[in-house]
Amino acid sequence: MAKRSIKLGALVHGVGGNVSGWRHPEVLPDASVNFSYYKEQVQLAESGKFDLVFIADGLYITEKSIPHFLNRFEPITLLSALASVTSKIGLVGTLSSSYSDPFTVARQFSSLDHLSGGRAGWNLVTSPLEGSAKNFGKTEHPTHDERYKIAEEHLEVTRGLWDSWEDDAFVRDKETGVFFDPSKLHRLDHKGAYFNVQGPLNIARSKQGQPVVFQAGSSESGKKLAGKGADAVFTGHENIEEAKAFYADVKARAVANGRSANDIVILPGIAPIIGKTQEEVERKYEEIASLVNIQNALDYLGRFFDHHDFSQYPLDEPFPELGELGSNSFRSGTDKIKKTAKEQGLTLRQVALQSATPRGQFIGTPENIADLIQKWHEEEAGDGFIVYSALPSILRDFVELVIPILQERGIYRTEYESDTLRGNLGLPIPANRYTAVKT
Amino acid sequence: MAKRSIKLGALVHGVGGNVSGWRHPEVLPDASVNFSYYKEQVQLAESGKFDLVFIADGLYITEKSIPHFLNRFEPITLLSALASVTSKIGLVGTLSSSYSDPFTVARQFSSLDHLSGGRAGWNLVTSPLEGSAKNFGKTEHPTHDERYKIAEEHLEVTRGLWDSWEDDAFVRDKETGVFFDPSKLHRLDHKGAYFNVQGPLNIARSKQGQPVVFQAGSSESGKKLAGKGADAVFTGHENIEEAKAFYADVKARAVANGRSANDIVILPGIAPIIGKTQEEVERKYEEIASLVNIQNALDYLGRFFDHHDFSQYPLDEPFPELGELGSNSFRSGTDKIKKTAKEQGLTLRQVALQSATPRGQFIGTPENIADLIQKWHEEEAGDGFIVYSALPSILRDFVELVIPILQERGIYRTEYESDTLRGNLGLPIPANRYTAVKT
Ligand SMILES: Cc1cc2nc3c(=O)[nH]c(=O)nc-3n(C[C@H](O)[C@H](O)[C@H](O)COP(=O)(O)O)c2cc1C
Ligand SMILES: Cc1cc2nc3c(=O)[nH]c(=O)nc-3n(C[C@H](O)[C@H](O)[C@H](O)COP(=O)(O)O)c2cc1C
Repeated sequence: MAKRSIKLGALVHGVGGNVSGWRHPEVLPDASVNFSYYKEQVQLAESGKFDLVFIADGLYITEKSIPHFLNRFEPITLLSALASVTSKIGLVGTLSSSYSDPFTVARQFSSLDHLSGGRAGWNLVTSPLEGSAKNFGKTEHPTHDERYKIAEEHLEVTRGLWDSWEDDAFVRDKETGVFFDPSKLHRLDHKGAYFNVQGPLNIARSKQGQPVVFQAGSSESGKKLAGKGADAVFTGHENIEEAKAFYADVKARAVANGRSANDIVILPGIAPIIGKTQEEVERKYEEIASLVNIQNALDYLGRFFDHHDFSQYPLDEPFPELGELGSNSFRSGTDKIKKTAKEQGLTLRQVALQSATPRGQFIGTPENIADLIQKWHEEEAGDGFIVYSALPSILRDFVELVIPILQERGIYRTEYESDTLRGNLGLPIPANRYTAVKT
Repeated sequence: MAKRSIKLGALVHGVGGNVSGWRHPEVLPDASVNFSYYKEQVQLAESGKFDLVFIADGLYITEKSIPHFLNRFEPITLLSALASVTSKIGLVGTLSSSYSDPFTVARQFSSLDHLSGGRAGWNLVTSPLEGSAKNFGKTEHPTHDERYKIAEEHLEVTRGLWDSWEDDAFVRDKETGVFFDPSKLHRLDHKGAYFNVQGPLNIARSKQGQPVVFQAGSSESGKKLAGKGADAVFTGHENIEEAKAFYADVKARAVANGRSANDIVILPGIAPIIGKTQEEVERKYEEIASLVNIQNALDYLGRFFDHHDFSQYPLDEPFPELGELGSNSFRSGTDKIKKTAKEQGLTLRQVALQSATPRGQFIGTPENIADLIQKWHEEEAGDGFIVYSALPSILRDFVELVIPILQERGIYRTEYESDTLRGNLGLPIPANRYTAVKT
């Protein structure tokens, strides 16, 4: 398999990277609804030739939710606004397949794709939080398994709608008055277990054919969906062995589905903390971690377990036995928390603080971080990385200090290869299903 | 009632103002998916101090649909992209209450409102086209009456969600670590005939309190909804008497609902054709009208009657008897077409060509048009107008030739009064329902 150069995404969050990040002196406490802030961060990422910016999302809050979740931009609108102030960087946003109509999703992402000249990406999630159902008139949040079945069908319909128009359907001949060729317009007529959608979609394919579809679930069902139908995967790993196993697993699933291993890009998340010396690194980590009080951390941890109230347990005893709790929401995440707590004999306090301010491997000097990135990439732990900045200055340091090293080593672009997200990620433009049949 | 200065909206359509407008030499035949085109038109409208730009929408196409409908931007994404390249003009888009979730609608318009600094508007429509149901997994398009019942409840829920956070809920005190005051966060807990939505919404109110809600239906149910809950009304009239009657009717309904007549802005659509002489005007009209062939015109007419096939009738005999056809879709429009055809003894050909290229009253020299605008405004036929440009050059002529006359007469702004859409339209900021109860 031909090696891709390193791909990079910037996860841009509003008010700080941890539950109390908004209290840090350099964070604007209204950043989550401050467009100037997002514009600046995304233009910074573009100056660092990042492939994409990533906007997360959620559909349910309570008064225990962390500040960024309480009051933030909706991804489709935010990315569209960013489209007109950027020119190369990909624009990827989260949207739930459990609580949306494929016709609307297909239209909005396609429209974003046209507005941005082929830079749109959809992070398809199934919505972990049970409470989401209550905001969408549903009596029950579908089970984890069913959510992934819905997701699979949703994606099938959305991709079908995206192909409504063949690429040469629009003739637009002013002389003859022929605007389009009706034989190149297709109705989907989908009838399925969860969706019935006739089509056609009222928007053409874009410069990159279809928006790039990301998947962020790491459970068995998540990996299955990714292997079958996603163009890219976001994931998170604690060490390189785990990441390599995940990488090999998902690539193998793509191949088993008749795809090439190159048809899917795998991007683990990293949370760098960058300093000139080890002391500076430690000081920066402490500055961030110390903002979190234990109640915030318990609330944050609780959200992963469906807003479970962890304050009922003693803080300095072993992490409580939770049974199945959490497995219908962020399953792969909660499984990992339970497993790590048991294996390492952690207390509730330790688990909560570690969740609130993860201290990953990617902390150190710019050289250290570049070395790790190069190693993970060379050893096939990832095709690239999603950079999660706990503070806005971390993205700046990454762009100014880490990226030049990668560029010098010839493993990261110095100019964008393409105007489209697919082009930069090295993903093929999917053939239109109807055109493909004819030829 | 204190008189408002004239308000103006620009309806920006992609490929030309009539069914064959895309064939006109000055029209970009891909304008409906060309962001540069929209950006230019909207910046032009902003240079003319227009209150707002208006983006129409639809949810169902067939191969008979007119070019602009076949392949166009989706309004929420388009307006968001326009937000970051404009600073004062209002951004109003159509979204259907029959085929959307209030939680998503509330979030997206609120997010657009934040992104634009308080310039968002929602044109709430009930979706006239029967076929829309097929794109949203519904077996039946709800009847006209039911659509308006849904609309009323949808708007109630959406406005409720918009008030989730009181305006001073966000404390953001870095010192004490208090991000918000939980007593100022409210769950809606709506349970109704069509929607069950718990809330709260995960975004605060904007600078203008809530997005401006427009209503564009002119049937009895449409006027009822407008009087009860809309901030603004788009409408269309053939003559000043009709427009005055409509204006008085809707204002009276607002008052009957305990509102002030000033709490609702009524904006009839006008379709100017501007020339230095009467000959130039006639030449321009002919240039546009002559692009339409009779088959295009029949298809266009058919869409209003649920894609009815008009080619089955003789062209030069009286407009056919259609019974109830059309009354479940664009009811007020189809009623008017039937009535006018009968009263004026029009043939099918005449009706079809007139529908394809309406020849309204607002055609003439810049002075003529300014006179008409002044008269309609003075006589309370409208608080202002939505300007529908059959060609991009018409908006330019309007801005360069008509607006300076209105400004000279002191009946139109020379500078924006406000940064928000409500501020410019002279609409009050709605009090938050929860704050209002307390005080
Ligand atoms: C990098 C990354 C980003 C994610 N972003 C979102 C998000 O924006 N919104 C969301 O609801 N879930 C998000 N998730 C959660 C996943 O959608 C998924 O629910 C979670 O990883 C659990 O996976 P599983 O359900 O397959 O077990 C993200 C996960 C990862 C690893
Ligand atoms: C100025 C104006 C703009 C309109 N824009 C839209 C639109 O963008 N999308 C849509 O589906 N209907 C639109 N309509 C149609 C109305 O929503 C409504 O269906 C139609 O006027 C018939 O009114 P009635 O249903 O109350 O009888 C518009 C109507 C007017 C007068």
